[in-house]
Amino acid sequence: MLQSIEARTGNAVGERWAESTPSEIDAAVAAAASAADAFAATSASRRAGLLRGLASVLEAERESLVALADRETGLGLPRLNGELDRSTFQLRGFADVLEGGGAHTVIDDKAVAGAPPSGRPRLTRVRVPLGPVAMFSASNFPFAFSVLGGDTASALGAGCPVVVKAHPAHPELSRRTAALALRVIAAQGLPVGVFQFVQGGSIDVGVALVKATAIAAVAFTGSFKGGTALARIAGERARPIPFFGELGSVNPLVVLPAALEKNGVELAGTLAQSICVGAGQFCTSPGVILVLQDAAGDAFVQALAAALRDLKPHAMLSATIRATFERGVAQWRNASRLKPLVDDAGDASAAAPRPFLAETLAADFIDDHALHEEVFGCAALVVRVASIDEAVEVLKAIGGSLTVTLWGADQDAEPTRRLVRTAMQVAGRVLFSGVPTGVAVTAAQHHGGPFPASTQPFTTSVGYAAMDRFLRPVALQDAPAWLLDRQGVPA
Amino acid sequence: MLQSIEARTGNAVGERWAESTPSEIDAAVAAAASAADAFAATSASRRAGLLRGLASVLEAERESLVALADRETGLGLPRLNGELDRSTFQLRGFADVLEGGGAHTVIDDKAVAGAPPSGRPRLTRVRVPLGPVAMFSASNFPFAFSVLGGDTASALGAGCPVVVKAHPAHPELSRRTAALALRVIAAQGLPVGVFQFVQGGSIDVGVALVKATAIAAVAFTGSFKGGTALARIAGERARPIPFFGELGSVNPLVVLPAALEKNGVELAGTLAQSICVGAGQFCTSPGVILVLQDAAGDAFVQALAAALRDLKPHAMLSATIRATFERGVAQWRNASRLKPLVDDAGDASAAAPRPFLAETLAADFIDDHALHEEVFGCAALVVRVASIDEAVEVLKAIGGSLTVTLWGADQDAEPTRRLVRTAMQVAGRVLFSGVPTGVAVTAAQHHGGPFPASTQPFTTSVGYAAMDRFLRPVALQDAPAWLLDRQGVPA
Repeated sequence: MLQSIEARTGNAVGERWAESTPSEIDAAVAAAASAADAFAATSASRRAGLLRGLASVLEAERESLVALADRETGLGLPRLNGELDRSTFQLRGFADVLEGGGAHTVIDDKAVAGAPPSGRPRLTRVRVPLGPVAMFSASNFPFAFSVLGGDTASALGAGCPVVVKAHPAHPELSRRTAALALRVIAAQGLPVGVFQFVQGGSIDVGVALVKATAIAAVAFTGSFKGGTALARIAGERARPIPFFGELGSVNPLVVLPAALEKNGVELAGTLAQSICVGAGQFCTSPGVILVLQDAAGDAFVQALAAALRDLKPHAMLSATIRATFERGVAQWRNASRLKPLVDDAGDASAAAPRPFLAETLAADFIDDHALHEEVFGCAALVVRVASIDEAVEVLKAIGGSLTVTLWGADQDAEPTRRLVRTAMQVAGRVLFSGVPTGVAVTAAQHHGGPFPASTQPFTTSVGYAAMDRFLRPVALQDAPAWLLDRQGVPA
Repeated sequence: MLQSIEARTGNAVGERWAESTPSEIDAAVAAAASAADAFAATSASRRAGLLRGLASVLEAERESLVALADRETGLGLPRLNGELDRSTFQLRGFADVLEGGGAHTVIDDKAVAGAPPSGRPRLTRVRVPLGPVAMFSASNFPFAFSVLGGDTASALGAGCPVVVKAHPAHPELSRRTAALALRVIAAQGLPVGVFQFVQGGSIDVGVALVKATAIAAVAFTGSFKGGTALARIAGERARPIPFFGELGSVNPLVVLPAALEKNGVELAGTLAQSICVGAGQFCTSPGVILVLQDAAGDAFVQALAAALRDLKPHAMLSATIRATFERGVAQWRNASRLKPLVDDAGDASAAAPRPFLAETLAADFIDDHALHEEVFGCAALVVRVASIDEAVEVLKAIGGSLTVTLWGADQDAEPTRRLVRTAMQVAGRVLFSGVPTGVAVTAAQHHGGPFPASTQPFTTSVGYAAMDRFLRPVALQDAPAWLLDRQGVPA
């Protein structure tokens, strides 16, 4: 059963309702499949119109949606208004890309007379929508990574119907948002199968969706455990399908001496804020801080601990997420080679957690694989390194992350260059200033990275390249004029 | 043990030698890993020089290589000379792309002042080489899909060291080619780890390679069975890696009335040749021929059968492949709802097979999943369809193929449009004239397609986009001037 829960109090609000039954899931998938051909054949500008319509309805209903989101997630009105802005910006950004022709980049190689290999037929490379996409909403961004978030926007933009699996941590907001989406789709005269919606707190709903024969791809943002389990199911289907999973990350941040010389205390404050923003419930939350073992490093760690001690994170998204955080921190607390620096257990049963920070040495961190796993929430590990080369080894041990942040790499020098090279091997995004929390929606963005950050490290779930996940290349050989014309290619 | 076998006679030639031991495989992977950083840092023009050097050495040694390939594969001198031409064209084509800057396409989004979502930091999207690639050679193209074929060329072009797993059906040619490659690498002053070589007839060698921790991706061309088994292993690693597998295909070809009106008999002859070229040992060999149930269709099928009966395919690549073909044909021969049209068993133990053609009805084909599987060799099924819409259903049942060929789709009409749309959903390449055997090396080419044609349908193993498989995007946020400079981006 589903139930809307007030995040700050744990109180149930309103009625309980049933999760989607197997036959409802089948019907949702069947509706999406039956709409796929017609939707694939729509023009880019028609799909742009759909995305703009969805953005408009979110804005029109802003007040009630944000209030409801706040009740169910506890993330606060300023953040949630900003997140709604980001979602409408994203929907309109994809619309801009579609209107600019970006979804259908074509390579047209004219025929060359003569024998192969230099002689060739005409080959025209186009892209076709994959088909119905199963979209798994995340708990931590009730707008930007949920029902009408980036995955839905990019799949619809590509011409793929979407079957949304709502996140049970904000069920009422999800069904309200879905109802608005269906209103827009009806008003625009599109088939209802373009947008379908299922709900469920149990694993069965997601599994049924990933196994459904007509589903052509899965977009997922969530936990390592859930994501890898579903990815395996997607791979074991009679016809495996792409599973675009963003599974979170420890987001190492390396503090080099050059950064501390300038403004170490200020940076410590900035970092503490980034660790605790949204109660640490960001995929890009910095979880491993690499600091040199020197006096400036000691001072920075002290300043970071002091800044963190002063912060009061707000309530977490749900009691389950809160309990998982507490378990993660308890593991760190009991790890023999970790020294807690900030550890005010407070009331472990309260919805709002207390920040946690501990310190360890590079060699101990590298040895203990359990420490490489994300603790989702306002907790971080400081890893003290003897040298930049040891920092390189720590990054290599982590292996895959959405982001790596390097503070103080402004000057070209050999060890820095090695560090940058390693960061680029390990991460989908490498930052040289600022904090990793906050992901700009733009063409150059890449929100992905080597496993476990992403199950498909070549793809991004944020930014305009996100649409590439749902458009498969096809080469047309000696295509007739009428077909080229329909693809917008001069005959 | 490995042994060079004369394809036409089955006779052993020369010494036997041992397959690579686990420690030799480890050493090859370790050498590749140790070369990865330095090779990734080479300039595109340096890598272009390597590819040109490899092309030159193939040409310089053409006579002996082609003679050896002919002995081990039985494919004949004209075809093998052509295939060597294609391989050198391919190596030089990738070199051209590198010199034109195509491997390092950059998107540079300048910073925008103001609050998010419209305000943003500077984001520069670049691409980085993945790291060591395990490359599995195919049996059927001893140059173009083997040691220095397209996978090796594209991985080296991308800046990834390659560990080649030779195909045991042409072991002597493989080790000779590898020795030439190593000579070029030494002459160009590149680390020996850039190109490593392992050999083995047993499954263990390939499994060890896919499991090796330092391997970052696998490129594979081969059987469905071997490919899906290795893909699973790649996905079950502690850190899963991309498995770019091209697993072959039934390559449906649809003959529409408009094509038969013009030149049905000539087309039947062309198709027969395509079914038998290289004894049918092409990934793109047409294996399912869809023909309408009308008089023109009957005449076409008769002409196709007659043309096939006259053909004498050459010896197959190996006794194993020959025996597998015989088993596949036997299954078809015994299928109750298939009517054999061309079935001269000949001497089932001879190296050269006899063409096989059978006919069935669409409904029977759709029902029997065993018929959707490729029989590798000069065999095809004619599927008679009552209408174009029934042809659509047959294509949907096949589901994934490297190619679909549509003859007679020159005019825009509603059922044709549905057929074209379905073909584009099912295939990586859709042809409107000619035959699918023969894959041009060009920017627009796409040699892939929905599963089982490819395990990564967004990628191609032929054409210049093949390099994309080995270059992962990374977004640099507020990158320092020195780094942008190294990436060739104006600060």
